Amino acid sequence: MRTNTLRELLDSGAVAVGGWLSVDSRYLAEVLSYGGYDTVTVDLQHGMFGLGEAVHLLQAVSAGPATPLARCPSHDPAVIGKLLDAGAYGIICPAVDSAADAAAFVRACRYPPSGIRSFGPSRGLLYGGADYAEHADETVLTFAMIESAAALADLEAIVATPGLDGVYVGPNDLALSLGVAPGAPTGVVLEALERIAAVATAAGVWPGTFCADAVVARQMVELGYRLVTPGNDIGILRTAVADRVAAVRGHRSTDAERGDATGY
Amino acid sequence: MRTNTLRELLDSGAVAVGGWLSVDSRYLAEVLSYGGYDTVTVDLQHGMFGLGEAVHLLQAVSAGPATPLARCPSHDPAVIGKLLDAGAYGIICPAVDSAADAAAFVRACRYPPSGIRSFGPSRGLLYGGADYAEHADETVLTFAMIESAAALADLEAIVATPGLDGVYVGPNDLALSLGVAPGAPTGVVLEALERIAAVATAAGVWPGTFCADAVVARQMVELGYRLVTPGNDIGILRTAVADRVAAVRGHRSTDAERGDATGY
Amino acid sequence: MRTNTLRELLDSGAVAVGGWLSVDSRYLAEVLSYGGYDTVTVDLQHGMFGLGEAVHLLQAVSAGPATPLARCPSHDPAVIGKLLDAGAYGIICPAVDSAADAAAFVRACRYPPSGIRSFGPSRGLLYGGADYAEHADETVLTFAMIESAAALADLEAIVATPGLDGVYVGPNDLALSLGVAPGAPTGVVLEALERIAAVATAAGVWPGTFCADAVVARQMVELGYRLVTPGNDIGILRTAVADRVAAVRGHRSTDAERGDATGY
Amino acid sequence: MRTNTLRELLDSGAVAVGGWLSVDSRYLAEVLSYGGYDTVTVDLQHGMFGLGEAVHLLQAVSAGPATPLARCPSHDPAVIGKLLDAGAYGIICPAVDSAADAAAFVRACRYPPSGIRSFGPSRGLLYGGADYAEHADETVLTFAMIESAAALADLEAIVATPGLDGVYVGPNDLALSLGVAPGAPTGVVLEALERIAAVATAAGVWPGTFCADAVVARQMVELGYRLVTPGNDIGILRTAVADRVAAVRGHRSTDAERGDATGY
Amino acid sequence: MRTNTLRELLDSGAVAVGGWLSVDSRYLAEVLSYGGYDTVTVDLQHGMFGLGEAVHLLQAVSAGPATPLARCPSHDPAVIGKLLDAGAYGIICPAVDSAADAAAFVRACRYPPSGIRSFGPSRGLLYGGADYAEHADETVLTFAMIESAAALADLEAIVATPGLDGVYVGPNDLALSLGVAPGAPTGVVLEALERIAAVATAAGVWPGTFCADAVVARQMVELGYRLVTPGNDIGILRTAVADRVAAVRGHRSTDAERGDATGY
Amino acid sequence: MRTNTLRELLDSGAVAVGGWLSVDSRYLAEVLSYGGYDTVTVDLQHGMFGLGEAVHLLQAVSAGPATPLARCPSHDPAVIGKLLDAGAYGIICPAVDSAADAAAFVRACRYPPSGIRSFGPSRGLLYGGADYAEHADETVLTFAMIESAAALADLEAIVATPGLDGVYVGPNDLALSLGVAPGAPTGVVLEALERIAAVATAAGVWPGTFCADAVVARQMVELGYRLVTPGNDIGILRTAVADRVAAVRGHRSTDAERGDATGY
Repeated sequence: MRTNTLRELLDSGAVAVGGWLSVDSRYLAEVLSYGGYDTVTVDLQHGMFGLGEAVHLLQAVSAGPATPLARCPSHDPAVIGKLLDAGAYGIICPAVDSAADAAAFVRACRYPPSGIRSFGPSRGLLYGGADYAEHADETVLTFAMIESAAALADLEAIVATPGLDGVYVGPNDLALSLGVAPGAPTGVVLEALERIAAVATAAGVWPGTFCADAVVARQMVELGYRLVTPGNDIGILRTAVADRVAAVRGHRSTDAERGDATGY
Repeated sequence: MRTNTLRELLDSGAVAVGGWLSVDSRYLAEVLSYGGYDTVTVDLQHGMFGLGEAVHLLQAVSAGPATPLARCPSHDPAVIGKLLDAGAYGIICPAVDSAADAAAFVRACRYPPSGIRSFGPSRGLLYGGADYAEHADETVLTFAMIESAAALADLEAIVATPGLDGVYVGPNDLALSLGVAPGAPTGVVLEALERIAAVATAAGVWPGTFCADAVVARQMVELGYRLVTPGNDIGILRTAVADRVAAVRGHRSTDAERGDATGY
Repeated sequence: MRTNTLRELLDSGAVAVGGWLSVDSRYLAEVLSYGGYDTVTVDLQHGMFGLGEAVHLLQAVSAGPATPLARCPSHDPAVIGKLLDAGAYGIICPAVDSAADAAAFVRACRYPPSGIRSFGPSRGLLYGGADYAEHADETVLTFAMIESAAALADLEAIVATPGLDGVYVGPNDLALSLGVAPGAPTGVVLEALERIAAVATAAGVWPGTFCADAVVARQMVELGYRLVTPGNDIGILRTAVADRVAAVRGHRSTDAERGDATGY
Repeated sequence: MRTNTLRELLDSGAVAVGGWLSVDSRYLAEVLSYGGYDTVTVDLQHGMFGLGEAVHLLQAVSAGPATPLARCPSHDPAVIGKLLDAGAYGIICPAVDSAADAAAFVRACRYPPSGIRSFGPSRGLLYGGADYAEHADETVLTFAMIESAAALADLEAIVATPGLDGVYVGPNDLALSLGVAPGAPTGVVLEALERIAAVATAAGVWPGTFCADAVVARQMVELGYRLVTPGNDIGILRTAVADRVAAVRGHRSTDAERGDATGY
Repeated sequence: MRTNTLRELLDSGAVAVGGWLSVDSRYLAEVLSYGGYDTVTVDLQHGMFGLGEAVHLLQAVSAGPATPLARCPSHDPAVIGKLLDAGAYGIICPAVDSAADAAAFVRACRYPPSGIRSFGPSRGLLYGGADYAEHADETVLTFAMIESAAALADLEAIVATPGLDGVYVGPNDLALSLGVAPGAPTGVVLEALERIAAVATAAGVWPGTFCADAVVARQMVELGYRLVTPGNDIGILRTAVADRVAAVRGHRSTDAERGDATGY
Repeated sequence: MRTNTLRELLDSGAVAVGGWLSVDSRYLAEVLSYGGYDTVTVDLQHGMFGLGEAVHLLQAVSAGPATPLARCPSHDPAVIGKLLDAGAYGIICPAVDSAADAAAFVRACRYPPSGIRSFGPSRGLLYGGADYAEHADETVLTFAMIESAAALADLEAIVATPGLDGVYVGPNDLALSLGVAPGAPTGVVLEALERIAAVATAAGVWPGTFCADAVVARQMVELGYRLVTPGNDIGILRTAVADRVAAVRGHRSTDAERGDATGY
């Protein structure tokens, strides 16, 4: 089976930089895969596409060098299974608010007897290889999103879930849950981010997080985060377009034009 | 944030006339938006498309003047959230059979602390504006479908749900639930429609309903309905095609050819 | 090979009523095919889709009872060939302004030695059957559009083209070419329509025409037209939507709202 | 309403041979429908497409002679309803592990009062006919998948579910659940297959099963299976491509190249 | 008819800043339209999509404030007509190498008697309005691309073409034609750009040009260019992604990573 | 720039085996690319898709190991250029009937000064690399189709065209042009195939050909053909499905069921 280079990279102790795809374009997906990222996540939760298109986007990501991941939209095991069948080499699952959620998530990613994934590897046989089914369970990465007060309360139990490879913080939802506006993390959100990194690392689980921009991403690396995502595709494009148009017009872009306080 | 003109219209005391999109065509979606309707609903429950296409259809509706709504296919908060992220300015939720259903539905449409909607406004930032996240909760409309005997039984509690803006009757499903064939409402269905309008209006919640045709729609306006949908796109087209072909052939179209007893 | 029921109908002396598809929806295409029309034309010239989608629309039309035709966007033989490969049982070719144009058009529809169509029957083998290639030349219908002063000047030669099955008038383009505004035909356009019907019929070639509505279509049948198209899909839908919305609001739709003076 | 020819065939005592569609191509779907199969199943669980595309694939299957079925991805009644609205003449539901699952599945396929299917027949009115809603309940086929130890344990109760037309074995998932590798059935899996056929037949419920290839399919017919699916589309194509490429290169294809031990 | 705000802007003497769409995404198209550009061009020549998708992209651009233009892939009048029918408010035509080319291009954009555009306004009636056909000829903008030595040789005659609104330089193709590598303009390419601006301005025709980046765009404004396009979507995104990834990794992006020497 | 492994293989003296894609599925395209072929051709002439989809299919082929080629539908340089921009590493051009056709074809594939290809490498920069534009001319393969009596008459001049890498016989069109039915080559078609191989080889140009099946492909290799295509995707699938269904039913498939006399 094809090696999971993201797992390999994380195993080696390095920090991984991730791209985040919200656009319904296979061309753009491939552009991101060739864009210097170690991995690109097809975001089925807030991305502007459905499950059918996600299959094509995973295919497009895998035409370039980045490891293809997917963020599923909910805990539905049928969707998680399909994304894996389509060749995702890892799943980032939103709103894992308890150890029970985490265990159910991991089970959705594993074949019996470890889990409940249904057999039908489809495109996995192409991207992974003819021995996909034998090695999928130890190849595919599982990241549980920590993005609520509830998850923080059960954090130690969540990270102790057998088969869980990492946690991934959704700082904007976490902020809202903690009563704070989305944006670059400060105060209780920053404290939570520090604690999550420490607890996950101590448990041998990789901490990852979405970030508003590169500055925040570097800050998160300092905190011990091992997978950082410095904004999504449209957030990066909007900022760059605003800057470029403003430069042609001879002034600086405003925050409203750049529109990236949250990374979106 | 861009004003919700449908909310404004309903607030002003006027009756709103709605279109209903079941066709997987962005061109036709835009045609409906320019067709004189106050609002057009992208029907993900019985429409012949999936969630990915619904995103494009919402985009196409918003290229014209009608306010874009969506009917979600089920109570799944992940789908409701995605439709809002895609720029729907209101959700019509099927089969709200209890006050608990209604409360869960409203929570799916609201950010914390009012609800559980996940942050990632995506296309909402384009259609709504840069301040989308701040104002979405008070802008987005919530309509709970009343379409079963169970819903009738819990009607007073449903309309009392905080944050619920309206109810919307599915007369065909309601008829089936009451043991009557779908079609223009009579008997117990008509009585239920009268009661729903009265109860909703008394509670300060707007009553709306799908209608078989314009005649029924006017009848419903007489009953106090404030949002009426005189048939879906294909029902209207089938009737018009049948009439036109028959006119060329020199006879009148039959009911079977027109096929619109239920508005579909 | 599957019989061309439109050819059979025209051979029998009957008048054929046609639908006209401009919408990029396979569902709507099938609705038209079941809508009582004898044939439905996939309009690649002004329809809001490209060649790839036209393939799917031909497939959708052929799921119902109407005979699938296509209007090609230009004289390009490669596009004509692809539409035939996709199962079109006839081609309506725009802007056939001379006998040379007509001969080239017919050649694009026929295999050697009669023409230059390239071999690769693809979906024709499904819709037509395993013996498609043997019988395609005598099955597929060829309609040359007469829609300019130049075409009128060469009309007798055009209709004498071997292998040409019919002519089809584009009354709006013809009007513009004759210096008249598009719309229901009068004056020089009506005279031209009379002459075309007579000349085509005398030459044993079926006359057909696009029409603004059913009234014009009946008028054209009186003139001898054998294939009449009473407006396109969107023209019919816009009129019906305008009527229905106006009926709900309690007034009559205006011409501007109905917007079908030209059948579009 | 259009007859369900698969139901008719099974009623007649004959064995039905099914195709299995995992490819996101309407053209290929139609090819399978014309390929000699009695029925073709659009596989939404492991097929490389989403719900929107499934609608188009059902349309494409119904353009040919095979009866269109769909395998839903989960027990979600909203998805089952949409597939039926799109013209599926039967549903194969995965992971029916208990009589309760079976009853819920059947209810999702039936209108009130028998079930909970929502009214909105859409494309069903085209493929089925104007009287679709009246006859859908007795026309549409329901197949519950038996593919776990739990299902085997509750088998007698499952097959006794009122309204259930058949069971359908997923031999690969069943094998995994029984601790055996996927592939041509032997040992406990073969014993389970024997028992399922016997129990289902005794209860008047048709047994069906997915098969790795034609040899297994014939073996299953010997066991009493009435609906057999000799591999999916890609499994068949991969084997044929491997054979053909090897033949050109002058050697025999290897198992790894053919890659069809499981029928995928 | 809806005003062409780009024409209005250019008429007012202002400089217009344009976006350039090469990505097959309606979401991204709308993002560009809201991105601060005065106009966005759907590039059918080098964009990674076909004509059918271009229709949807024009629709998406027109959901935001930027004026929708299209670059056609060749001189084919059928494609130009379709793009206008789809609501493009201007066409940028590649490789206009002679006055004859320019005259043919303008004729393809105008209805008879001024030109040869075929009647069938389709989506133009939505975006433009019910009186589209009456005013389209004076509303739609025509830009002829100057991108070869031949075009330079016939420049004075090209800019004198009646009905031509502007010229638009393709600096990379022009460079190749002059024997120079693509990139930021210098030497003979820069001299040609200076001459084109002067000759066009003198003839009352607006000069426009594609630019490698904002610096070149400002340089071109200094030369008198009135429509400048500071790179295409992917060029901007690739640069921004390279910068951001490098920033996270703690170094500067290299030219190879940024990959925008030509604006692509 | 990424090496053209097909060119390398042919340079090494080996025979290349090619796949042929007529299906509008990115999944199936990737299946073919992993199917053991040295190259896969996206057939835009008779394939059931348009130019937009061809871009995605080229992307899908390049996700696997086979070298992506495209057959263009006509001689239109705009389409050829777009296919190259989309990452095709070679073009097979239909109906090259003269040396003039061949020269024009080669020019369409080359940048100035060798040709007329327009600059805008788009996806070529991803698949090929950042130095794509510098090396494209010597990397991209050009195959001229010999498929008419006219081409045979000008064969020596065609193969002498500078920059032409190979010829590729369309045996079915060639047969029709020579007055023979399509199918496995005999008589004058076989003689022509022998002569083409000899003349091309003598001129240092690689001979290739489409073949009805593996038997014919081996026969062609014996004649000296260096690129052989043993049937298209659907031809292979139809044969395999017919065989498998027949095997389940206990008989042998008939020629009509297998339907592959021509390789389609």
